Amino acid sequence: MPKIDGPRLLGDLKRLAEFGRYETGVDRPTYSAVDVASRQWLAEKFAEAGLAPVIDGIGNVFGRAEHATRRLLVGSHSETQPKGGWLDGALGVVYGIELARAFAADPGLKGLGIETVAWADEEGHYGNMLGSRSFTGRLSEAEIDSYESRDGVPLRDALAHAGYAGRPRIEVDPARYLGYLEAHIEQGDTLDTSGLRIGIVEGIVGIWNWRVTLTGQQNHAGTTQMARRKDAGVAMVRLATRIHDRFATIAGPRTVWTIGRMLIDPNAPSVVPGRAEMLVQARDVDTAILARYRAALLELVAESDRAGPCRAEIEDLSRTEPRMMDPEFESAIEATAERYVPGGHTRMPSGAGHDAQVISHKLRAGMMFIPSLKGISHHWSEDTSEDDIVLGAQVFADAAAEILKAGLKAR
Amino acid sequence: MPKIDGPRLLGDLKRLAEFGRYETGVDRPTYSAVDVASRQWLAEKFAEAGLAPVIDGIGNVFGRAEHATRRLLVGSHSETQPKGGWLDGALGVVYGIELARAFAADPGLKGLGIETVAWADEEGHYGNMLGSRSFTGRLSEAEIDSYESRDGVPLRDALAHAGYAGRPRIEVDPARYLGYLEAHIEQGDTLDTSGLRIGIVEGIVGIWNWRVTLTGQQNHAGTTQMARRKDAGVAMVRLATRIHDRFATIAGPRTVWTIGRMLIDPNAPSVVPGRAEMLVQARDVDTAILARYRAALLELVAESDRAGPCRAEIEDLSRTEPRMMDPEFESAIEATAERYVPGGHTRMPSGAGHDAQVISHKLRAGMMFIPSLKGISHHWSEDTSEDDIVLGAQVFADAAAEILKAGLKAR
Repeated sequence: MPKIDGPRLLGDLKRLAEFGRYETGVDRPTYSAVDVASRQWLAEKFAEAGLAPVIDGIGNVFGRAEHATRRLLVGSHSETQPKGGWLDGALGVVYGIELARAFAADPGLKGLGIETVAWADEEGHYGNMLGSRSFTGRLSEAEIDSYESRDGVPLRDALAHAGYAGRPRIEVDPARYLGYLEAHIEQGDTLDTSGLRIGIVEGIVGIWNWRVTLTGQQNHAGTTQMARRKDAGVAMVRLATRIHDRFATIAGPRTVWTIGRMLIDPNAPSVVPGRAEMLVQARDVDTAILARYRAALLELVAESDRAGPCRAEIEDLSRTEPRMMDPEFESAIEATAERYVPGGHTRMPSGAGHDAQVISHKLRAGMMFIPSLKGISHHWSEDTSEDDIVLGAQVFADAAAEILKAGLKAR
Repeated sequence: MPKIDGPRLLGDLKRLAEFGRYETGVDRPTYSAVDVASRQWLAEKFAEAGLAPVIDGIGNVFGRAEHATRRLLVGSHSETQPKGGWLDGALGVVYGIELARAFAADPGLKGLGIETVAWADEEGHYGNMLGSRSFTGRLSEAEIDSYESRDGVPLRDALAHAGYAGRPRIEVDPARYLGYLEAHIEQGDTLDTSGLRIGIVEGIVGIWNWRVTLTGQQNHAGTTQMARRKDAGVAMVRLATRIHDRFATIAGPRTVWTIGRMLIDPNAPSVVPGRAEMLVQARDVDTAILARYRAALLELVAESDRAGPCRAEIEDLSRTEPRMMDPEFESAIEATAERYVPGGHTRMPSGAGHDAQVISHKLRAGMMFIPSLKGISHHWSEDTSEDDIVLGAQVFADAAAEILKAGLKAR
């Protein structure tokens, strides 16, 4: 079976974290200078592991095992959230490198190929899961034309600046792979608080996003009497409060919702805000619950609009459906975890979105979680113990070997 | 009596509005390139009007009437709010120029001097009313060291970049002037909706500003269960809603309050906000009402902090006290207005802060308002009819002549 080299694995993770280091975490937005440099470094690491590296037209980095007879694609994304953590995404990419090296070093695994991948922009700096969508044919040229960053930089400009414009975008050949495996930190605290060390992902939540816009009348904060105001900021905080109250009453056992982004315009202390906007998000593995949230939100926005004095409008921004992982991949990971940590693993849903949900449209897909200390994620203080990182890689490698040996047919 | 030249006055106002034109308004933040250029242009206009121009170390532009025997200082500020209006501030400055020209052209007004001024940063891009505070000795070097713009640019750097660093700051010689007169658009709709054409300002509201900060725990919006969240954005909208509710119950007849600035961090759709901040402001002519607002706010913030899960803190940011205008100046403006528009004027408080309130600590001060169409202000669509602009200048010029002729003693 493949043998993980713990110090080598940890050394590569720490080196990757130097691209955009922020406190003990990483600030590496997609297509930023540090992100482009890190993708180049990853391509070199893929080559060192004996793979043929390619960076494609959306910034995905592949390491190809041309001479293998059976292949698994293994990886994750490599950019981070703003002031994000050092393991989110990076862990799964470096696991891919370590698996490729461990497989190459073991004569008993000859012909069984680990192909590595670092997807671009899973975190949605320009558009959610750009890389895996591109790979699976779910990202059109027109969409690429239309996307821009939160700061208004067009995706096309970012790709040109990164040096990726004009390169072909690599699309999946489903016959090439037995499937796709992705390892990731849990990003929640289910494993950490229960002392479990491995999570086997059964499914990934659907994520629905809406934009709510309030339009009032910008005016002077000293001369505009209260009765005559149309303050979009007041309308926003009142509506947001009602949304949080209502959503709490219709939640399923694991529903989560977030208003993560709020903006008022012009956002100056002496100006009555004329416009406000908030992004509302709900996540659940059950589409019926997500539909219930949407209905409640539409109703609350309509109520706010009717009540006045500001206009309230809602827009469906994006929607991913819940996706289930491949049951045979789950069984393989679970059996391997049981060998290393008997009773120390659990099946669970993923509350976060992952590239695996996109890839699952084209390939069998499996995901494995390792613990996040205190469940902290999307923050620079995110961390996992080194023991858990190394154990996870070994379980993941053995599961990959088992899947490749079994030679499950492509779907 | 002085004779206003309407087309000349309107022409200068329109020329000044070209510095930083935005839609039909102006975007001319203090010490920006367009602001510095406009101050140079004003200095040249002051010189054309027969005055000796000086730009001082804080960016105030003065036009000095060295040979006059009695003097009134006349002006306002010349920078604008972001995407602000073309008349806010600019009107009072150009009135000063037109008055200086009209007085110089009238042999009957010989020896009666109009000195012009364009104050710097009344709008508070770096600090509220920097120019008039500097002129009245209410702005220390240490304060200048500490101030910075909303974007974090130090005031010192901005002054150096503008070319004002190292120049002396001119301070008022109270014996030089009979007093200070400032004309301004009303910025509210009292005059416009009642068909009145001149407002005589009795007093200027006090403005109290607070910063409220909510501190929670930044986390992943998919994997952090609702019960474990410390969402600073939720804490902010709930507290803001309670503030608006409570403030409405303790208002005086003309109290206004505003939460004009709200920020959540990191403000990304898939991240539970770890920190939020809002700027809360109240204005009234009655200090006792402002104190009541402060007490209520302290209580609400303490309640929010006790309730958890986020920490809530408040900071007194700034406080101006209400200021009354000079009664004899008011009478002069009122008598003149009655000559031109019998019954078409009113005495009123100013809901907005103005440099006149600062100057009133050192000189007799008077203010006159002309209508704002629909009361719109601090927005590029702000406007006033040309008839009202020209009439206002004539009333203002006559009032200035009356005050100068009467030769009221300096206080």
